[in-house]
Amino acid sequence: MTKNKKVNAAILIIGNEILSGRTQDTNTSSIAIWLNSIGVKVNEVRVIADIQTTIIDTVNYLRKTYDYVFTTGGIGPTHDDITAESISKAFKLEYVIHKNAFKILEAYYKVGEFNEGRQKMVWMPRNANLILNPTSGAPGFNVENVFCLPGVPSILKSMLGGLKNKIVGGDPILSHTISLKTVESEIANSLTNVQNKNKDVEIGSYPFFQAGKLGVSIVIRSENQIKIDKCISEILEFVDEKKIEVVIR
Amino acid sequence: MTKNKKVNAAILIIGNEILSGRTQDTNTSSIAIWLNSIGVKVNEVRVIADIQTTIIDTVNYLRKTYDYVFTTGGIGPTHDDITAESISKAFKLEYVIHKNAFKILEAYYKVGEFNEGRQKMVWMPRNANLILNPTSGAPGFNVENVFCLPGVPSILKSMLGGLKNKIVGGDPILSHTISLKTVESEIANSLTNVQNKNKDVEIGSYPFFQAGKLGVSIVIRSENQIKIDKCISEILEFVDEKKIEVVIR
Repeated sequence: MTKNKKVNAAILIIGNEILSGRTQDTNTSSIAIWLNSIGVKVNEVRVIADIQTTIIDTVNYLRKTYDYVFTTGGIGPTHDDITAESISKAFKLEYVIHKNAFKILEAYYKVGEFNEGRQKMVWMPRNANLILNPTSGAPGFNVENVFCLPGVPSILKSMLGGLKNKIVGGDPILSHTISLKTVESEIANSLTNVQNKNKDVEIGSYPFFQAGKLGVSIVIRSENQIKIDKCISEILEFVDEKKIEVVIR
Repeated sequence: MTKNKKVNAAILIIGNEILSGRTQDTNTSSIAIWLNSIGVKVNEVRVIADIQTTIIDTVNYLRKTYDYVFTTGGIGPTHDDITAESISKAFKLEYVIHKNAFKILEAYYKVGEFNEGRQKMVWMPRNANLILNPTSGAPGFNVENVFCLPGVPSILKSMLGGLKNKIVGGDPILSHTISLKTVESEIANSLTNVQNKNKDVEIGSYPFFQAGKLGVSIVIRSENQIKIDKCISEILEFVDEKKIEVVIR
């Protein structure tokens, strides 16, 4: 793939425990930061319930809309783990025992421990490609542009590295943060001017309250460092004029 | 509204900073836990970028699909705060100065501090209802079933209490957690049986790894305590038979 192409993705978090508020999702941030580093931008995240029709419809929409889709959750051994079967149906593929996944788990567990519950984890859409799991054995998988990862954050993180050769990104998305001791309203107009002069750079403004400090972080994002540098100097120009204290430049 | 009705909601997180992974969303969990307590179940969460057409289309889909929609983010004073204008367009309402919001902020700030940047925060869809902000002055608002809240978690949390009279929920969603010293595969079949016998109760199974301990939390959710109790006793029955150690019952 030629560089300079914009490559995008959606993240689909599958799990009632996120919707109920019981569990705080942290996978979005892990996946998004990793994708940015290989030049893939996350355009949308959805969190949905463990309901087969919902998973099928959402996956089918997202995989046709974005270059890549990453799902998390629902690939374990219990009754509420229905991602692999749902993905099979979304792609109209048979839901079958994946022979290599079977071999991997047979070797991973001690004799007698590869029980019926665990054997559920080797059922996948026919001809799915495995995503190896260096932490707990049970692999994830991908079918075309849909990559299915587990919900447990530490396991998910350990599997991202193995995806590198399967994802073709564009230019890495670079970012720079300037933190100021000010309030948003003080810089709003000047920042709007910088954004208007640099329309293809993403400039975000985020108030922070930390250790009694009130401030604003300005985040500048682009694939092009020269464009970021231009924004930095335009921002520091008005910051200097307004005599605003710079915490991080 | 009669009780026993199921009331649902969607949460719409508006903000590039969540999609880039820079900021970890915590508002979903705060809103979902609070909604559960007043009998509203979150069926879907979406995270989208600060793009007007995306906000309009997503809000129009969600507000027609769910009883309530809660948006977070994009109601501050800077150029990337485009939620209020986008909501106006979604409802085909004029985007105007809200007189009461103006009075509130005029009184909140010291003389001379209610500057042009801050005045942006009083622009809202015509006839929007204000949601008071006890932390930092600037109100949120709602139009029909769409409630617009800020992105800063501490401010958002302080505003939820004020919404209580505007939201009509069903029966509160109750939940009970049983934590076991086991692995999921050990209980998968037995738990499937309990789920199959209690189809209208939501039973989730979540592995945990904490302080070197490996375990499984089973979460049982329903509006009906008697149904939850029935599941608890059926689960403790097989747990007892299998001689599994119970950490929390």
